[in-house]
Amino acid sequence: MNEFMKAAYEEAAKNLETNEGGPFGAVIVKDGEIVAAARNMVLATNDPTMHAEIAAIRAATKQLGRCHLDDCVIYSTCEPCPMCMAAIMWARIPTVYYGADRRDAAAIGFADNAIYEYFQGTAAEKAVSVSELDRRECVQLFERWAKKNDRTLY
Amino acid sequence: MNEFMKAAYEEAAKNLETNEGGPFGAVIVKDGEIVAAARNMVLATNDPTMHAEIAAIRAATKQLGRCHLDDCVIYSTCEPCPMCMAAIMWARIPTVYYGADRRDAAAIGFADNAIYEYFQGTAAEKAVSVSELDRRECVQLFERWAKKNDRTLY
Repeated sequence: MNEFMKAAYEEAAKNLETNEGGPFGAVIVKDGEIVAAARNMVLATNDPTMHAEIAAIRAATKQLGRCHLDDCVIYSTCEPCPMCMAAIMWARIPTVYYGADRRDAAAIGFADNAIYEYFQGTAAEKAVSVSELDRRECVQLFERWAKKNDRTLY
Repeated sequence: MNEFMKAAYEEAAKNLETNEGGPFGAVIVKDGEIVAAARNMVLATNDPTMHAEIAAIRAATKQLGRCHLDDCVIYSTCEPCPMCMAAIMWARIPTVYYGADRRDAAAIGFADNAIYEYFQGTAAEKAVSVSELDRRECVQLFERWAKKNDRTLY
């Protein structure tokens, strides 16, 4: 195996011995060195966002003291779900390597593929009711923020 | 304004006075009561996943001691980005109300709409290079996990 994927695999394998989360691991690499390694900790933390990739992004950004990782690569034992893939984009990580894919995750009971279908517009049923409310006031707040001289985009 | 959207708006408005994050707020409501209120804290924390909705989900699941919020409603001042929408699905929140939409967010410089286009397959350019690597070993790990008698799905 690739040495970094092997490190992600070893993170994931820890959850074969625990009930702390699913069999998923990820590492983030900068300049050929691992800066963060993490595994899924959804059950241990009760945090449904604590997927391996998000845990690794949180650890790497904390370690490096910045919110963008545009000089990093992420290795994940499973294709990132849409939550994690969008997190990778917000973190500006340009390169992703993954092992098993969304259909392999579906085969062991996870919703990754179903969530992809929601975004592709091909889902059989609508998983969530989503409605607009009070748009005018919220857009006014955006306009006030856009006039702020010291605002920072990220 | 709706009382819960107003509470989300007041969270968002705090970031007009700070450089802690963008002008986004969210609240999670259970049985007519707010169980968590949060705002975007990406800049304060250097955590690119610390959007208002994810911060609210993390606070609500911590407060309630469980990773599923299927009896809750989320109110957000902006349409959740794909990261946050997928987090809402993993948290099993069935109902979302939002104020401004993805195009309003784009108008003030945020990537929400571009990330939606990536998942819809309509993006003008590929933001991230995504490649498969060592799938066989990672699927074998899934198979070992699926045979685990005490595994928990979430």
